[in-house]
Order: sequence, then C-alpha cells, then structure tokens
Amino acid sequence: MSETVDAPIGIFDSGFGGLTVASAIVDQLPGEDIIYLGDTARSPYGPRSIAEVRRFALACLDTLMEMGVKALVIACNTASAAVLADARERYHVPLTEVIMPAARRAVRVSRTGRVAVACTSATAVSGVYDDAIGAAMGVELTTVVCPRFVEFVEKGITGGDELLAVAEEYLAPVIRSRADTLILGCTHYPLLSGVISYVLGPDVTLVSSAEECANATYATLTRAGWVNPSGQGCRRFLTTGNPDRFAQIGSRLLGKFGNHAEPLKNLSYGQVMVSV
Amino acid sequence: MSETVDAPIGIFDSGFGGLTVASAIVDQLPGEDIIYLGDTARSPYGPRSIAEVRRFALACLDTLMEMGVKALVIACNTASAAVLADARERYHVPLTEVIMPAARRAVRVSRTGRVAVACTSATAVSGVYDDAIGAAMGVELTTVVCPRFVEFVEKGITGGDELLAVAEEYLAPVIRSRADTLILGCTHYPLLSGVISYVLGPDVTLVSSAEECANATYATLTRAGWVNPSGQGCRRFLTTGNPDRFAQIGSRLLGKFGNHAEPLKNLSYGQVMVSV
Repeated sequence: MSETVDAPIGIFDSGFGGLTVASAIVDQLPGEDIIYLGDTARSPYGPRSIAEVRRFALACLDTLMEMGVKALVIACNTASAAVLADARERYHVPLTEVIMPAARRAVRVSRTGRVAVACTSATAVSGVYDDAIGAAMGVELTTVVCPRFVEFVEKGITGGDELLAVAEEYLAPVIRSRADTLILGCTHYPLLSGVISYVLGPDVTLVSSAEECANATYATLTRAGWVNPSGQGCRRFLTTGNPDRFAQIGSRLLGKFGNHAEPLKNLSYGQVMVSV
Repeated sequence: MSETVDAPIGIFDSGFGGLTVASAIVDQLPGEDIIYLGDTARSPYGPRSIAEVRRFALACLDTLMEMGVKALVIACNTASAAVLADARERYHVPLTEVIMPAARRAVRVSRTGRVAVACTSATAVSGVYDDAIGAAMGVELTTVVCPRFVEFVEKGITGGDELLAVAEEYLAPVIRSRADTLILGCTHYPLLSGVISYVLGPDVTLVSSAEECANATYATLTRAGWVNPSGQGCRRFLTTGNPDRFAQIGSRLLGKFGNHAEPLKNLSYGQVMVSV
C-alpha cells in the first residue's frame, strides 16, 4: 500500500494545455510526485480521427502505467472524448479527466440553465459537452469554437487589442445566447480567463476544467486513501517531441514565479518514446 | 502614458496569503511587473483593531505608491475591510481588492440563495461579507471561521487525516446550512480547495477571492488602457520582516513548478522599511 501512496500521479495531454491541470493539481497536492506526458510529436490531436486519437492516447497512458503511476489524469478534452471508456476498462487505478467535472459544475452554477462552452473545433465536433450535460433537465448548451486562443496562450499573449478583438468575435454568440455560465472547455483557456471575463462581463461565471479536474483528482485520491502526505513533489515533464521546445513553451504556461529555492532534482524535463 | 503602462502593479497583503492573488494575476497578466509587499513584521492583522490595521495598511500602500506602481491590489481580507474607503480617497490609480469581486460572484453562482463564507475570525467579526452581500435580495449568509487553515497552508499541508478532521469540523455548519456556494474568504484558502471541495461534496461551488480579484484587476487595467503588452514580468517580493523566512514560506505558497529557464533578474526577494 505504501508503495502505491508514494507512486507518482500520471498526467497526460496531447501537448501543453494540460499544464494548467498539472498546475492546479500541484496547488492542491504539492507533495505529490508527478509525471506529465505531452504527446507533442503528434499534437494537435484536433484534426485527427477519433480512432487515431484513441490509439495515441492509449499508447501514452500505457507508457505512464509502465512507469508505475498510482493514478491517471487525462488532461486533454479531445483525448477524454475519445478514450475514457477504453481507459476505464484497461487501467485499474483512479482515473480522472477534464470534461465531466466541468460539466457537472456548470450545471450546478447556472441559474438560468443557459450554459455555454468555449472549446476547440475538435471538441465541438465530438459533442462531448452536449453528452455530458444532456441529462440535466432544462439546460441549454451553446458551443463556441475559439481556434486562435491556443496560439495566443502558447505565445504568452493574454492581453492587448488583437486578442481582445478576437475574443469579442469568438464570444459574441455566448453573449447573444444570454448564457450565465461559460465552461472553459480547453485546458489552455484558464490562462485567458481575464480577457474572457472582461468580454463577457461580471454576470457570466467561468468554469475552469483545469480547476474542476484538480478537485476531482484530489477527491478520488483521498477516497482511495492514496494521498501522499510527505512526498517531495518531484515533477517530471516528458514529451514525445523536442524537449527544448517543450521546456520553452511549458515555461510560458506554468513558469509563474521561478523558485530558485527549489532543488533541481524536483524538476526535470525529458523525452520519451511512445510506440503507437 | 507609456510610463504608466510600463509601471508595476503593487500588491499588498499583511503576510503570505496574498501570494495566491499574485499567482492568479501572473497567470492572467504574465508580462506585468509586480511588486508584492507583505507586512509580515506586523502580521497577522487579525487580532488588531480596525484603526491599527488601517494605519499599517495605508503605510504599506503609501510605500508601494512611492515605488511608482500603476495600480494597487489589496490582497488581504482584513485590510480590505479596514482601508478600502480611505484608499479610494487617497490614491488615484486603479484599485482592486478581494472582497467585493468574490461576494458578487457568489451571489451570481448561488441557485438557492444560501451562501457561506469561510474566513478568519477577524474577517468574520468585521461583518464585511455580510455588508458586501447585504444588497442582494433573498441571499442568506452563513459564516464559518477556520483559524487553523492558515497554519496548514503555511506548513505546506493540504491533505491527510488531521487536516481532513479539522476541515470536517469547521465546515459542518456550512453543510447544515445547505449552502450551495462557499466563498473562500481568506487568500490562503484556495490552496485548500481540494480538501474543502472533498468535504462539502460536488454540489457546493467554491468561489476563490484570489481568482475573482485577478479577474477584477485584469478588467480594471484593460478598461484604463494600462495593460502592458510587452513587459518582462519582473517580480519583486518585499517584506517588512525577515526576507529569508518570507522566501521560505512564500515558496510553499507559490513555489509550484520551479522554472530554471527564468532569468533570476525577473525574480527578487527583499526587505523594505515601512514607517507606521
């Protein structure tokens, strides 16, 4: 049992967006060891078929399982849609993902039943948020796709006139729908919550899939008795692509406050081969 | 004008809790320079009189203004309650604080009108959340004080049996009140959102004063045209107390992922004298 408690949490994403999920998990569980695997060699998953995304995602999750993780977090909306059922069958560790926790929160937060989700086109086409919310009576979902948001976040641009104009254009249907709740249905988007909230105004509540997924992960581990109370918080960031590029873009997403007090052993970047 | 755009944002707290506000602001505005001033020599403010807190807080805010900040963030619930009106009169820069944005969000999020706030005893006694929510019709506020939460956060403890037992005790009145919304009315508490959400269950939505304050700060700066689109994100952390202790506890609150790629010049700790 103690072997399991000490094991790292495996976090998987197609690329960089899942780093906001990793960041929220570290906030809540700073002692846990983490292995983050970004499949940047094959990202973005958006334009690929569901079957292909499933194959890539399972290969990455298999790789994390082989490294001995005690829990899996699918920190990617597209992959969650494609692989959740298969992953539940295949792996016998606590498993969380980004869609269900955010959908459940949005239904609980909305006072009018008019909910919107901002996401990539792949997530919109998958209909996964429609499915997740479908059982809630009297809730109507408006979906807006925000293709350029990822590019802005990865460039470190979170303000300024160009972004503001783009956000106003993307979010106009949300305003027209009179939604009172917006799901940030892509793990990059929490870093744009400032501009999104500014455009939508104070009457629209934002639901972060990163934050809700972290809460779900905390609850799942606590329920299983698998929280590590005295861990060192070692964090490994693995990519199937170029590790230098990963470290560079990654630092834009979670660079935050550099902390020169933290021993370097607690943080490492590297590359991993994933056979798909 | 460009001088103003380039100036840092001043963030003030009695101690360390405001670092979660700073962290949320950095997420949304990574290019902005920041000066964080923690009055740790005189913290905690909780046991002090309102008049004394006002004197200390104005001295700290004066110090930040003398450093040429373009905006002020009062990232401390106790100080916000004591000093907001005075600060609005005294400083002619955009000013945000932690109470009003969270109160407004909670009223918009609650479906039943049963809202709770978790806070320190000083904040509870001040009645500031009752005042902030008072104008909303049909909203009933339950206040719970959680004195030991700050101690857990500053020790880096966010899980485990002892914390869980304490959280269950503190939050029992929230469950009894059948609140559907809980304001995290102390800037330390967002780091305990995992355990708080676990104890309250998925039907209670947490409102983070740190996150809402960051959104308000973003909106205020954007409206004023004072967002810095191309800043370097230099971050200075100043304390009126011991800078080594500040760096040590501070790193527990926002150490997160150390980022060895970030130039050291972008991050500094130091001490400042504040005449009160």
